[in-house]
Amino acid sequence: MYIDIEVVPVSSPDDTPLDAARGRRIVAVVGKTEGNGGVNDFTRALAARAWTDALQSTPLTVMSGGTEGVLSPHVTLLLESDVQSGSGSLSAGFATTARLPTVALGRRAQAEAVAAATAEAIANGGFEQSDTRLVLVKCPLLTTEQIVASGGTAATEDSYESMALSRAASALGVALACGEIDSNELDEALAGDLSHWSSVASASSGTELDRCHVLVLGSPRESGGGLHAETVVMQDAIDMAPVLKLRDEILAKGGRVVQVFAKAEASSDGRVRGMRHTMLTDTDLSSTRHARAAVGGLLGGIFGTTALYVSGGAEHQGPPGGGPVTVVWDSSPEMNRGAL
Amino acid sequence: MYIDIEVVPVSSPDDTPLDAARGRRIVAVVGKTEGNGGVNDFTRALAARAWTDALQSTPLTVMSGGTEGVLSPHVTLLLESDVQSGSGSLSAGFATTARLPTVALGRRAQAEAVAAATAEAIANGGFEQSDTRLVLVKCPLLTTEQIVASGGTAATEDSYESMALSRAASALGVALACGEIDSNELDEALAGDLSHWSSVASASSGTELDRCHVLVLGSPRESGGGLHAETVVMQDAIDMAPVLKLRDEILAKGGRVVQVFAKAEASSDGRVRGMRHTMLTDTDLSSTRHARAAVGGLLGGIFGTTALYVSGGAEHQGPPGGGPVTVVWDSSPEMNRGAL
Amino acid sequence: MYIDIEVVPVSSPDDTPLDAARGRRIVAVVGKTEGNGGVNDFTRALAARAWTDALQSTPLTVMSGGTEGVLSPHVTLLLESDVQSGSGSLSAGFATTARLPTVALGRRAQAEAVAAATAEAIANGGFEQSDTRLVLVKCPLLTTEQIVASGGTAATEDSYESMALSRAASALGVALACGEIDSNELDEALAGDLSHWSSVASASSGTELDRCHVLVLGSPRESGGGLHAETVVMQDAIDMAPVLKLRDEILAKGGRVVQVFAKAEASSDGRVRGMRHTMLTDTDLSSTRHARAAVGGLLGGIFGTTALYVSGGAEHQGPPGGGPVTVVWDSSPEMNRGAL
Amino acid sequence: MYIDIEVVPVSSPDDTPLDAARGRRIVAVVGKTEGNGGVNDFTRALAARAWTDALQSTPLTVMSGGTEGVLSPHVTLLLESDVQSGSGSLSAGFATTARLPTVALGRRAQAEAVAAATAEAIANGGFEQSDTRLVLVKCPLLTTEQIVASGGTAATEDSYESMALSRAASALGVALACGEIDSNELDEALAGDLSHWSSVASASSGTELDRCHVLVLGSPRESGGGLHAETVVMQDAIDMAPVLKLRDEILAKGGRVVQVFAKAEASSDGRVRGMRHTMLTDTDLSSTRHARAAVGGLLGGIFGTTALYVSGGAEHQGPPGGGPVTVVWDSSPEMNRGAL
Repeated sequence: MYIDIEVVPVSSPDDTPLDAARGRRIVAVVGKTEGNGGVNDFTRALAARAWTDALQSTPLTVMSGGTEGVLSPHVTLLLESDVQSGSGSLSAGFATTARLPTVALGRRAQAEAVAAATAEAIANGGFEQSDTRLVLVKCPLLTTEQIVASGGTAATEDSYESMALSRAASALGVALACGEIDSNELDEALAGDLSHWSSVASASSGTELDRCHVLVLGSPRESGGGLHAETVVMQDAIDMAPVLKLRDEILAKGGRVVQVFAKAEASSDGRVRGMRHTMLTDTDLSSTRHARAAVGGLLGGIFGTTALYVSGGAEHQGPPGGGPVTVVWDSSPEMNRGAL
Repeated sequence: MYIDIEVVPVSSPDDTPLDAARGRRIVAVVGKTEGNGGVNDFTRALAARAWTDALQSTPLTVMSGGTEGVLSPHVTLLLESDVQSGSGSLSAGFATTARLPTVALGRRAQAEAVAAATAEAIANGGFEQSDTRLVLVKCPLLTTEQIVASGGTAATEDSYESMALSRAASALGVALACGEIDSNELDEALAGDLSHWSSVASASSGTELDRCHVLVLGSPRESGGGLHAETVVMQDAIDMAPVLKLRDEILAKGGRVVQVFAKAEASSDGRVRGMRHTMLTDTDLSSTRHARAAVGGLLGGIFGTTALYVSGGAEHQGPPGGGPVTVVWDSSPEMNRGAL
Repeated sequence: MYIDIEVVPVSSPDDTPLDAARGRRIVAVVGKTEGNGGVNDFTRALAARAWTDALQSTPLTVMSGGTEGVLSPHVTLLLESDVQSGSGSLSAGFATTARLPTVALGRRAQAEAVAAATAEAIANGGFEQSDTRLVLVKCPLLTTEQIVASGGTAATEDSYESMALSRAASALGVALACGEIDSNELDEALAGDLSHWSSVASASSGTELDRCHVLVLGSPRESGGGLHAETVVMQDAIDMAPVLKLRDEILAKGGRVVQVFAKAEASSDGRVRGMRHTMLTDTDLSSTRHARAAVGGLLGGIFGTTALYVSGGAEHQGPPGGGPVTVVWDSSPEMNRGAL
Repeated sequence: MYIDIEVVPVSSPDDTPLDAARGRRIVAVVGKTEGNGGVNDFTRALAARAWTDALQSTPLTVMSGGTEGVLSPHVTLLLESDVQSGSGSLSAGFATTARLPTVALGRRAQAEAVAAATAEAIANGGFEQSDTRLVLVKCPLLTTEQIVASGGTAATEDSYESMALSRAASALGVALACGEIDSNELDEALAGDLSHWSSVASASSGTELDRCHVLVLGSPRESGGGLHAETVVMQDAIDMAPVLKLRDEILAKGGRVVQVFAKAEASSDGRVRGMRHTMLTDTDLSSTRHARAAVGGLLGGIFGTTALYVSGGAEHQGPPGGGPVTVVWDSSPEMNRGAL
């Protein structure tokens, strides 16, 4: 399905600026909400509920909590496009897994379910696997209640850690579906090998859903006018060069950056280019909050705007400490661009 | 006094890596410690105590709390230089105000005391006022005890706000000493006019001292080989362009960046380039922690290292929401540079 | 209106356990939600939205954020009672003020509006002013946007402080309506005199509403079987004696405690019985979170349960550092009590 | 060694009120400092350093971070007593383990080392094992650096979790030394069986030491005038009854409570008496901060003071969710008591 994209600021998690769609059907809402991004971040649930109320049909929602630092709460609306209106070949596909049992979370079963959903979404998106530029996954976490009820069968006893395990399994499912890893490497990765990762996965977890939502963006490189997407990989949390290069290439072509989707994390070795960081030893401030703030600051500087999708916790999403950055841009001549 | 600079990682606030001085006298220690940078950040006191214990003579210490995001705990050692050793003309001057009474904090009396100390430090630094590139001020805050004891005469009843008031008065003192504002403008600024600010002040407040420490760096632009300093001003928290330009000019001359001193803050209008931020409405995470993390991420990307001095709360230090960035670099031929 | 009360645990802020009403009309929902209780606590909005969705008629909702320590997220349902069902004479009245302009918040206009609404609620509750046992007020706060838009006319520039000012004005409105202070004392109190306070007010502020909701409970002391309410005042945050005495009196009569409504705060002098506390100097943890946790722990110990309504920030609600505690209990013979 | 005890408020972590000793030799300093009690709480290190500086001989220091809620920063000085001065038979013993290798932390080797040190401390304390009333253990945690350096051999990859594992192993060592568990039960407990616990252990972990310090208090029940200690166990975090009973027994004998040592924790099943708590799902506020605040509030109410030693994280220290409470009291006639 060809899509248009509108990035719209929100005044609160339950703000639903429908006017920005200007009549086009909203097929998905990807949001950054202003909670802590952790286990007890209920801004994601509030936003999902508000959008479900506001729209006749239920859209796919991917709400990611945490707008630390300069990041600005906003939604990215994915709108059904008729190609004539000026948009190009950016396409989107969608799928949802079955409900994920507690025992599956963070394990191979979750990865396989996400892999199947990713393949389904690529197929219904109508593009080639090689043209996949971003696979957003929203996945569940484990609450204390679920952990206790599992009688020791859950993958962890800690709710916050379950968020990381869920993101990891989702990302590995994407990697499997996209041919970035094979089945053996999946097992190795689930056993802790961080050298296996996806360059297009972006997973975030939350308590507001009990299954995984998958949203895929595809963009063939040879396409003409309209919307495009390209993805680069930051090797660590301060790896500005590839992002700056991509931005400059887009600007050199006369393109306009529409939105940026990035992952951020605290490297598990406690260092960035050899220097110690304190993101993993701060008992008052979770590592995902630290990481979103830092990478959000860097990307804000590069792109000159702060309504960016920066999601925390990049397990198997890019190399350890780094993460993928997907840029959607518009190559249409200025006159054809809609005024927001 | 001509100085050398060494930037040295620390493993904890009480780590005092004396070896890095390689025999040169340490005249000041400027550090980033890993506390929360707020009222109850005792890592600054621990670091100051450890350095006082470690050195025979008491050095001037400016400890700034908060290494959010990618920022790395470190110290910048200011070392007495003999010019022959390869360093250039970077000079430093020092002064300390008298003990600041509670009633003076955040008010004109503090600004005037800092102005006098700044003038004294520039004089004993041996350079022109126009060559001043950075005025670091470490100043007190008000504890609940002091506020209560003041019987309503303190400038605020809130400890965290006293940190901002103290930074503001210190910065305005620097602006006065450096001819950036006049006495009338000082009054206006103390009354809330944010349009008056210093382009070289960097003030941080803490509970570990009862007076203001002032450290000034001077660097004439015409100097030859060795260490230099230059300052640019970020207009907002994502204003990458002037910093990137300065970095590229330094690199184009064959220079090597030695250290960066920056201020960061949440703009008081709640916006960055028109987009809402959440730094001032987050009850769990103070605005200075947000701001340091974001600007630290941006500067880390630009300079490729994270042992940067990024201090939070930039009241009257640069324009609202922005702040000064001072870069110290070495123009010596590679062969003459000491190996750390 | 005679009411019944049911205290029901919730599994999340949007959990609406309607079954607990067992057919009776829900006239108000008073909840403790699991957010931070601060400016960016959106669990209150989520809960209010969920209850509005779940019920045909819109109930009055008073959602108070923050279940620190042992406190358990729950709702207290106020249900229309037919006296024959076994409940006694506990009555409730309700009123809502007009929308509160930004400039009014924390000022006399807010206090007067709340005073009028309190009088209205007592009247429609059908009991005497002297039988008033609790006046719950839910009131707005000021967001950064509102503060900026006010052009300097707002009572504060700090969102978190606006919560305290709003609670203070609401509490003083209650005190005025209940004859606890006169108009001159209102002015003194608004100017900072903490010696004027209400012994029955319980105010909490939030971003989820733009006017004040007032809910009054009345209970004549001479009444027979059924529900009763009594209020005592804690003189400081560890003043166990009056609460323990009230509990023991209730138990001695064969009564059963149904619910407890309490206010908690950090004393502004920084001390509890002469010993320093750190609630006002903790940059990572807001003072209302500290206070709720502590008083919640004490009341949990006294009453043997944790589904208690403990609200943070007791400005002019009880003496400085203390707060009112209202206990609702059932004097019905055991056989007549409904099984939850 | 017979000891006296003085409880003295401190104005900051590096405050060392030596005068309170009134000439008696300080043999140990047990303190509550005002940090977050977590991995990056450096107030413990600052306090330990300050006391080491202040005293000629190095005392045993047990610094426990976290004075949430009403708790007040203070030190409990253990002073060498000559019995004639009015103190009774309260005795103390001390021991320190060897440096704990990373691989040992949280494992049987730590438990055994602490068991040996406990036995040694009881012996040099000069009392019977059955008269042991409190075994305070201060033990290390694992930093990110140590975890990374261990190459996967550390018991956990998470610094905050290492604090819990270290407390658990220390407590089980105490239980072993005191005959509360046997060797098989130690293995079961280390494997996760929470039904094995000590009724006298109180362990806290910190980054400021690399071995375990053990301090034991003994008090025969038949002793006459002077200081005594007795310990009860709270079954959960709101179990007021046994503590209130002990207090009342002491008061009935004309005794005066001198100090209280308690442990607090969030029950791992997520509930307190069947009601859900949120201490384990709060990404902004660690569970030990929640628990200290709540239990500190309860004990503050019971004892009417807030300079209490309440330590967070009670793994195998009392039953799950509960913890031991040791009360030291003075049975001397009023006239013999020293004035503080």
